[in-house]
Amino acid sequence: MSTPDPKAVDLRAAIREIPDFPSPGIGFKDITTLLADPVALDAAVRGLAAAARPLAPDVVIGAEARGFLLGPALARELGCGFVLARKPGKLPHTTVRAEYALEYGTDALELHSDAVAHGARVLVHDDLLATGGTARALCELVEQLGGTVAGCAFLVELAFLPGRAALEPRPVHALVTYESE
Amino acid sequence: MSTPDPKAVDLRAAIREIPDFPSPGIGFKDITTLLADPVALDAAVRGLAAAARPLAPDVVIGAEARGFLLGPALARELGCGFVLARKPGKLPHTTVRAEYALEYGTDALELHSDAVAHGARVLVHDDLLATGGTARALCELVEQLGGTVAGCAFLVELAFLPGRAALEPRPVHALVTYESE
Repeated sequence: MSTPDPKAVDLRAAIREIPDFPSPGIGFKDITTLLADPVALDAAVRGLAAAARPLAPDVVIGAEARGFLLGPALARELGCGFVLARKPGKLPHTTVRAEYALEYGTDALELHSDAVAHGARVLVHDDLLATGGTARALCELVEQLGGTVAGCAFLVELAFLPGRAALEPRPVHALVTYESE
Repeated sequence: MSTPDPKAVDLRAAIREIPDFPSPGIGFKDITTLLADPVALDAAVRGLAAAARPLAPDVVIGAEARGFLLGPALARELGCGFVLARKPGKLPHTTVRAEYALEYGTDALELHSDAVAHGARVLVHDDLLATGGTARALCELVEQLGGTVAGCAFLVELAFLPGRAALEPRPVHALVTYESE
């Protein structure tokens, strides 16, 4: 296929906005339209890789379910492997765990205890940076195992929410930024 | 990175077997070790693409959560887009639905109603073919929208279970086949 400069592809235009989902007043950023567009999908993977390459990661980590969508493709583009964090009870081997706050209550992610080597440089990936709860839990999992978070790369950032602050001082990159709701 | 012939990479050796998970007597095929290995990850994507290319798909479909791991990377390798089926209530736009049987009870998958164009040739992908319930639900979603299932491509097939029969007469490919438990 043709490979245009990923910066020349309008990723924002490929994301569909759904009003009032999941609740009234929220404009949901629907990336399914981007994933379904071969040119936008390819540009997203290459754009994330271009942002992440200077961080020199050894491995990419992403969380169930939406972090699985671009994480392995990004890892492959970087020549890395992909390690996955899942909801409790899903991973079959020995795990470590990190909890994170939801609007009401808490949730948790687990990672295989042998998934990150001591000293490995890990790129944290998710499709969307909002309040940063999931990404911060991923950072904690990496650091529990003695890895270093090389940085974080997101497809979309909702910059009107405090996700970037929650991840300080780690480098954060996003391909598409929304400054207001 | 180097790109060895995917057939020269031992994908089976990259899959870890976990005894007695999720229940006694079951040997779980743990693909996390394959995904974490850059050479095996790349060979898996290229191997799936080589099997799927003769089916001439326009688009790849995969289901939450593990169908997301290789589906978009496979779509990108084929020059296609990726469409995603999710558990009920997760997709933000108008959806169609297919139910499938579990060991006890039923579950369902949803797909955006505009995700598959009438007449599109769709490749069904999942990481694992077991009884075929998920893959068959994906086929039904595609066909509800007037698409054609070009075929099905899996990383792993448990050939001692009746998944392949459940998908007949659709073409089925798998990169790693286990003939017995």
